[in-house]
Amino acid sequence: MGPHGDESSDIEKSEESRPSRPISTVVFVIAMQAEAQPLVNKFGLSETISDSLVGGKGLPWVLYQGFHKDLHIYVVCPGKDPASGVDSVGTVPSSLVTFASIQALKPDLLINAGTCGAFKVKGANIGDVFLASDVVFHDRRIPIPMFDLYGVGLRPAFSTPNLLKELSLKIGRLSTGDSLDMSTQDETLIIANDATIKDMEGAAVAYVADLLKVPVIFLKAVTDLIDGDKPTAEEFLQNLALVTSALEENATNVINFINGKSLSDL
Amino acid sequence: MGPHGDESSDIEKSEESRPSRPISTVVFVIAMQAEAQPLVNKFGLSETISDSLVGGKGLPWVLYQGFHKDLHIYVVCPGKDPASGVDSVGTVPSSLVTFASIQALKPDLLINAGTCGAFKVKGANIGDVFLASDVVFHDRRIPIPMFDLYGVGLRPAFSTPNLLKELSLKIGRLSTGDSLDMSTQDETLIIANDATIKDMEGAAVAYVADLLKVPVIFLKAVTDLIDGDKPTAEEFLQNLALVTSALEENATNVINFINGKSLSDL
Repeated sequence: MGPHGDESSDIEKSEESRPSRPISTVVFVIAMQAEAQPLVNKFGLSETISDSLVGGKGLPWVLYQGFHKDLHIYVVCPGKDPASGVDSVGTVPSSLVTFASIQALKPDLLINAGTCGAFKVKGANIGDVFLASDVVFHDRRIPIPMFDLYGVGLRPAFSTPNLLKELSLKIGRLSTGDSLDMSTQDETLIIANDATIKDMEGAAVAYVADLLKVPVIFLKAVTDLIDGDKPTAEEFLQNLALVTSALEENATNVINFINGKSLSDL
Repeated sequence: MGPHGDESSDIEKSEESRPSRPISTVVFVIAMQAEAQPLVNKFGLSETISDSLVGGKGLPWVLYQGFHKDLHIYVVCPGKDPASGVDSVGTVPSSLVTFASIQALKPDLLINAGTCGAFKVKGANIGDVFLASDVVFHDRRIPIPMFDLYGVGLRPAFSTPNLLKELSLKIGRLSTGDSLDMSTQDETLIIANDATIKDMEGAAVAYVADLLKVPVIFLKAVTDLIDGDKPTAEEFLQNLALVTSALEENATNVINFINGKSLSDL
């Protein structure tokens, strides 16, 4: 990902040494409890005190942890917004929990898992699970030279060619914005950026992972077809339960594939 | 601000004890170096190692500190984006530096200072400095009951009636979004929310301050009139230097007013 000029030598060193040893700690960043629960159940993770995240004391953040084969697995969710009672979706809460999780848990690999919208003209169907090739933002329009590129924030996902092949996942560019719906200007940018799937967190998680030099992949299950004939919110709610089950199944396959492998094996 | 059900008793206690003692530590969160520099110069602040922020090691974040009368003043900026070289504007980087600054510096008061757009139909002029009454987002459209309220994210600024009166600042609602321009749908929401000024960070800083229970105020200087006849980017760049000087002057007045006072005196 993007070069940082001032990282300390111990960070460089730990990055160099990473690829050769087996992955031991994986953190899932998941925005909604409904998306996280099937995975928590599947791996028998137990809720732990979010105080163990840097700065997590007294916050709504929810942290689960447990072991599966040789892997220490964490699932972190930004939790319920205290004022409205709903899951704290979107870029800001996800970037905060990603930041705090990396600080506290020092994962070898981050996985941002969740639901997404997708374009059927790009070959997507409800229930498909995608691995993102790279991520962009579609709602950060800053029409000043270089700021425009910063706004789009293109970042590659960590490259996992073997995982992609083995699990027969679909692949495409993920575009992130803080709205569930899509405005005309969002659509223009999504099309200009040639994105296949659309979510509300991915590019923000990628930003933090890039800043802190942690490899990240994106596993996104399609709840709604953006260019279909149903309203997004209705289609999203209708398919949420079914699709999170497909997400859990694929996340399980990913974990089983990762187990015992190093980053460079992925 | 919004109630949290699970804060620890020592947080409650420190909140109760806060209003009566003089404010000692103030942190300015400022997105752009050009907005921060006049203030850094005015107070003779010196750049310090951002490692002192939790997790700040190796990051582009910039931290200044110094003393003015009885106050310990910090200015924190998210710094230059490594890939594009521009200031890391917008909600995600500001929320991260706010989070880390609160953790590390334990401020009595946060001040999010910067430039903004404003509506002349609401009585705003170029160079005006506003104090925000409250903040909302205009680019988080989630048309599901309760999620819609969460998306708007209305939060009051810390109430400072005496400061407002003494400094003759203008007051209005601040609306935040990650774009410098304004789409049709942004405009619809800004008008529906009756906002007077528009920025790219405020509501995200408010979200983090609310989460961590730190009082926050917003000092925003008008660089461009949203309903004027010039393109936003052009007007913004043209007025940036002039307006940051007005911002510095007003921030100085705010600091001088705060000095020796407790939160409840503001």
